[in-house]
Amino acid sequence: MVHADASNFVIGVTKDQAYEQVLMQAEGLFDGQRNWVCNLSNAASLLWHAYKSLPSPSNQVNWAGFYTLNPLSPSPQLILGPFQGKVACQTIAFSRGVCGVAAATQTTQLVRDVDAFPGHIACDGDSRSEIVVPIVVSQEGTGEKKLVAIIDIDCAVLDGFDEVDRVYLEKLGGLIGRSCDWWLWSSGDRLDC
Amino acid sequence: MVHADASNFVIGVTKDQAYEQVLMQAEGLFDGQRNWVCNLSNAASLLWHAYKSLPSPSNQVNWAGFYTLNPLSPSPQLILGPFQGKVACQTIAFSRGVCGVAAATQTTQLVRDVDAFPGHIACDGDSRSEIVVPIVVSQEGTGEKKLVAIIDIDCAVLDGFDEVDRVYLEKLGGLIGRSCDWWLWSSGDRLDC
Repeated sequence: MVHADASNFVIGVTKDQAYEQVLMQAEGLFDGQRNWVCNLSNAASLLWHAYKSLPSPSNQVNWAGFYTLNPLSPSPQLILGPFQGKVACQTIAFSRGVCGVAAATQTTQLVRDVDAFPGHIACDGDSRSEIVVPIVVSQEGTGEKKLVAIIDIDCAVLDGFDEVDRVYLEKLGGLIGRSCDWWLWSSGDRLDC
Repeated sequence: MVHADASNFVIGVTKDQAYEQVLMQAEGLFDGQRNWVCNLSNAASLLWHAYKSLPSPSNQVNWAGFYTLNPLSPSPQLILGPFQGKVACQTIAFSRGVCGVAAATQTTQLVRDVDAFPGHIACDGDSRSEIVVPIVVSQEGTGEKKLVAIIDIDCAVLDGFDEVDRVYLEKLGGLIGRSCDWWLWSSGDRLDC
């Protein structure tokens, strides 16, 4: 199978079925590949094409992707990762907007109306609803859960997401968290090629 | 201006004008931001939306994104970076396919018919033509040019690209090369968060 076929979803499937396919394809793509940039790039593509195969409101998703922890920032900050959709804000402080709150609290934010969310950051004025799911990894030894990234999905209509999205995106977040080596860059690690 | 507006291209512009907007927007987005994952993610979005605003064949582009050097590979290898489009091959050996040849030779590959290109890798059976532009950086001191990434654009029709694409994508490759810190991960740099 050529890789692009993983993005082909049958029209008429339910949201549960589409997410099940995303999880199955993601698991296959991550098998033997733990590079987080590579895996998040393919995961964003899977999600985008899954939503586009579904009826409204899911097919009104207008941004699907990731922000990761920015280890170069002196204060806790997210930085833009791989995504599908229009150009997005580069950095987001923890606690700022929907993404920042999800990162700071390590809890999923399911926002039916972004304009009603205090401090919402309007990267795209078309976005009306949003779901953000934290990706956390347990530290060896202590078991303490540390945030490494978030899944961020925007929708151009109100009430774009429900509990089905929450359940499956949290499953995907768990899979991504344990399937990648979270080697982020540091100032001392400039590529010496 | 919200960030998403950078992806909005006026219908009816020429290809030159669309690429000029890509370059201008990219320069603005990279100003003060040298994180390569962040910048490549936004650059893929700019390119994708530019192509979709143009007449055929440009609007038939079905993949736009990046592969980077994989420092973890013992042999020279590209690994998937941020992109827009369907799921893609994770790794490509130097010299293999259009991307591999561009990487190994550090020269743009403008391929009017991918099926006629020896060793073409069919990540997506829909792709008919392709352009791949190397992104190189000069090493301090020696000035030796080292490959850090490639721009890869696929099109679903034959003859999707011409000299205009080559000229502007090489300009974009130069801008990206000097605008990012190419801090790639290494096995000794696991995030200790």
